[in-house]
Amino acid sequence: MSLSIAVARERAPGESRVALVPETAKKFAALGASLRMEQSAGAESHFLDTDYVDVGMVNGISEAYGNAGLILRVTPPSPEEIAALPEGSVLIGLLKPFEDKARLDALNARKITAFSLELLPRISRAQSMDALSSQASCAGYQCGLIAAARCTKFFPMLTTAAGTIRPARVLVIGAGVAGLQAIATCKRLGAMVEAYDVRSAAREQIESLGAKFVDTGVSADGAGGYARDLTAEEKAQQTEKLAKAVALSDVVITTAAIPGKKAPIIITTDMISRMKYGAIIVDMAAESGGNCALTQPGEHVVANDVNIHGPLNLPSRMPTHASELYAKNIYNFISPWIKDGELVFDWSDDVVAGTLLCKDGATVNGQIKQIFGEA
Amino acid sequence: MSLSIAVARERAPGESRVALVPETAKKFAALGASLRMEQSAGAESHFLDTDYVDVGMVNGISEAYGNAGLILRVTPPSPEEIAALPEGSVLIGLLKPFEDKARLDALNARKITAFSLELLPRISRAQSMDALSSQASCAGYQCGLIAAARCTKFFPMLTTAAGTIRPARVLVIGAGVAGLQAIATCKRLGAMVEAYDVRSAAREQIESLGAKFVDTGVSADGAGGYARDLTAEEKAQQTEKLAKAVALSDVVITTAAIPGKKAPIIITTDMISRMKYGAIIVDMAAESGGNCALTQPGEHVVANDVNIHGPLNLPSRMPTHASELYAKNIYNFISPWIKDGELVFDWSDDVVAGTLLCKDGATVNGQIKQIFGEA
Repeated sequence: MSLSIAVARERAPGESRVALVPETAKKFAALGASLRMEQSAGAESHFLDTDYVDVGMVNGISEAYGNAGLILRVTPPSPEEIAALPEGSVLIGLLKPFEDKARLDALNARKITAFSLELLPRISRAQSMDALSSQASCAGYQCGLIAAARCTKFFPMLTTAAGTIRPARVLVIGAGVAGLQAIATCKRLGAMVEAYDVRSAAREQIESLGAKFVDTGVSADGAGGYARDLTAEEKAQQTEKLAKAVALSDVVITTAAIPGKKAPIIITTDMISRMKYGAIIVDMAAESGGNCALTQPGEHVVANDVNIHGPLNLPSRMPTHASELYAKNIYNFISPWIKDGELVFDWSDDVVAGTLLCKDGATVNGQIKQIFGEA
Repeated sequence: MSLSIAVARERAPGESRVALVPETAKKFAALGASLRMEQSAGAESHFLDTDYVDVGMVNGISEAYGNAGLILRVTPPSPEEIAALPEGSVLIGLLKPFEDKARLDALNARKITAFSLELLPRISRAQSMDALSSQASCAGYQCGLIAAARCTKFFPMLTTAAGTIRPARVLVIGAGVAGLQAIATCKRLGAMVEAYDVRSAAREQIESLGAKFVDTGVSADGAGGYARDLTAEEKAQQTEKLAKAVALSDVVITTAAIPGKKAPIIITTDMISRMKYGAIIVDMAAESGGNCALTQPGEHVVANDVNIHGPLNLPSRMPTHASELYAKNIYNFISPWIKDGELVFDWSDDVVAGTLLCKDGATVNGQIKQIFGEA
């Protein structure tokens, strides 16, 4: 019997992505897998059921998951959804492995082999599977658009019969994938963009996009391409230099998130009190608490006439392309292990082993075991 | 006694612009005028009362208008606001002269000398006073941003480790000031942009922005730089050619408004039924009824999974720059007639005479008199 792949409609509030798009469905089918999908699972991403020519459409999540061997998801399954997973099946998704021990226990109780793409090793061979990066591209682009749409000024310089309009000043804090995409988007729109990152390597990337690097004299190069925590002294120096840049900006976009940790507070209330009347902050780190002291996740807060936006699930704002990229990441991760229509992993492979969260009734990832005191 | 200029807070719902900004206040003061403003009149445009160093701040509209000689406004005054206008004073604003005879009667009852900037002659000398153009620039830019933010896809082409994302396809209909700004904004963001206008001269402008001209074989060059009405036959040909372009687009932005008239329906329900699943329409003509058959002004309608946005008062979404441009237009219009601190018009001047709506208790503009059967 060939591998059966199943996809259900994402049920998390506000989630509009889907883990399988017509293009990747076709590719899975070509590898000899059979595919089953809950009706309308792609609708919010604007894929019609009839676009999935290689997929059997069924009614309801239990019918979709049935006795499937491989379940593709975007978000972690809820307790009800875990109950619908076939015992011993393979699950892949952005499973938020850092946040919920009860979920891990439930997955282990059903002996699910769970791959969590947040755990994907950041090595070049795995780049095409990097869902955090692809979704961060979407998030950074959306942050740039939110910033432009909410700004009370033009981003580009404008020469009109009535006079010249100066371009808006944008400051982007954090130049990872999302930050760089935000910089690129604001630059495209014609804003004057400055950017800052604690990792010294970011300077070149920032400048290559035509933005100006804000030099605070502090560097925090950390493991895995992420920033390490700063000392109190380094933070004070960073804060002082950044405060000056923040005060001059019409828009501040913050993107400094550390996986599995609360986001660092970078924009303090004192900094906000020194900002321009009518300036805006778009805090992309809202999901993990926010980089701005006053951010309310999912809300829009006004303080000192500064508008602070804390948008959530930004990739879901552009679900067609976010799903396309995400589905390709999943396909790239799993397809090397589909042979003659069967799923056969090499458990010693770096990428497989690094991404594996649970197997045979136990949590196996070292980092996660440590977080939940199981190491 | 020197000319007294007054500005009250705009009270129309959703209006966040102001007719006087700190920079133009300074210039008026330099001409010998005295200025009075209602407290917080600039707040929604993010100008503080303290930014207006040359202006006396007062509490309430009656105190602001008092015995002023010249009243600067963005929107037409309401009946209550007309009651606060000093008899015989000069009023300037975007007075929507085509839409409300009762308002004209009320202005005439108070013998207001009213200038309506919609009536400004479209001659090169008057370009720096052209508030319709400056506000249309804002509106077109905002339409481009709304389109990008609402689109379920990236506008730019994106080359990622997981594959290449094709740029979004945008069609802009109507290449006046607003349409050209929408084209420029979408091009800046990296979309593939096509555009159409019934005026043949628009082709060169469209192409100069790097967009592709949609040639329907129909031209409707009209007076004053606006498009004339098309015949039924021309409309059918236009519709057929446009329907094909619409069906291929991820985003359609429509900007075809005719001053004082209901906007022409360009996007029919049949065209919408042939559009891509998940496509969006931003209908900038929503204020005058819309260019799309299903547009609901101020609302967001979904039909056949096509999202139809009918935003209103777009310049108010970027009030700082919209007010800056508008205030400069007003200053450029009125300042030549301030001599030694007094307001002295040359009533035979083309620009003055063309823009004049009411004087000495009567509506004097020929076009408006005709509309209301007074000619």
